[in-house]
Amino acid sequence: GGPGGPMHAAPPGTYQTYSAYTGYPSAASVDPMWSYFTAIAGQDGEVDAEELQRCLTQSGIHGTYKPFSLETCRVMIAMLDRDMTGKMGFNEFKELWAALNGWKQNFMMYDQDRSGTVEPLELGQAITSMGYRLSAQAITGIIKRYCKDGKTYFDDYVACCVKLRAVTDAFRRRDSLQQGYVNFGYDDFIQCTMSI
Amino acid sequence: GGPGGPMHAAPPGTYQTYSAYTGYPSAASVDPMWSYFTAIAGQDGEVDAEELQRCLTQSGIHGTYKPFSLETCRVMIAMLDRDMTGKMGFNEFKELWAALNGWKQNFMMYDQDRSGTVEPLELGQAITSMGYRLSAQAITGIIKRYCKDGKTYFDDYVACCVKLRAVTDAFRRRDSLQQGYVNFGYDDFIQCTMSI
Repeated sequence: GGPGGPMHAAPPGTYQTYSAYTGYPSAASVDPMWSYFTAIAGQDGEVDAEELQRCLTQSGIHGTYKPFSLETCRVMIAMLDRDMTGKMGFNEFKELWAALNGWKQNFMMYDQDRSGTVEPLELGQAITSMGYRLSAQAITGIIKRYCKDGKTYFDDYVACCVKLRAVTDAFRRRDSLQQGYVNFGYDDFIQCTMSI
Repeated sequence: GGPGGPMHAAPPGTYQTYSAYTGYPSAASVDPMWSYFTAIAGQDGEVDAEELQRCLTQSGIHGTYKPFSLETCRVMIAMLDRDMTGKMGFNEFKELWAALNGWKQNFMMYDQDRSGTVEPLELGQAITSMGYRLSAQAITGIIKRYCKDGKTYFDDYVACCVKLRAVTDAFRRRDSLQQGYVNFGYDDFIQCTMSI
């Protein structure tokens, strides 16, 4: 397969390059986003986790689901906060917005009765369908972490997608030869794991 | 310094072996714990994150602080859930209890006015005082992640301590020669990061 194309067969140990996210329409939704964002970002043009939570809640992107928790918003900030300021600018917000729309569509595909939850196994299927190549053990660990009373809620689903993307991204940045292996020093490992 | 002793000078890249946690008194608190635990664990003798939250709230271990959030309880389970069942038995609960008491004492030392919060820089000092040897950049990343409105709350402080211990533990288990470097495959990295 081509480099990182999630639709092609990839050798074990490889991981996607997020091309799944770039195909979502975003141009049409740019204008209202800008107003949500600027109304809250204020002077410095950046939002922190609390501001992001208000911004996303006001935008109604969660639809009929419960608005995102602060914890999930923190993970969103961490995913895109490459300069480690704990805040997010408008370009990062747009990137997040596109990803959120994709994840929401994906979730709704599984949540056909609009209960706000999907079966844990469907979380696993969704992850696989996004192009991540993970062992059954890794999928099981993820499911355990992101299910509550035997169900996966929208907020946790998104938190899971955000985090999976963020840690995969952190790994990829260090795996310059794209071989699926990275030698981590302890301090760098802590930076990767604790900031997300 | 001796192997892993956090009080001795250690070369950069080393990390503590948790001797800081073994010194806390626990014998006196064993009996009430057992009753909190069994009242909630029920038939299978294990608790999941929701049950752990109820258990800890009823025990009153949070004292005058707000009870632990479900999110923090999930991280607690993940820290000790070495068999990946998503649940925690009594021995693991005892281990958690001892650690929580230590972290609480530590927090109260910084929170002298009992406001329920400490300064972000104090979170950094607390981490260092526990014996973790981290770069300023790693500490900054941690502080960013675990502060809210410029303060670090007790719940987040504990979540941070739990997670730092868990990821350090995961790293150490793989660093068999204790050299401060681990070669991670992608799937294993995802298991480490996503289950915590």
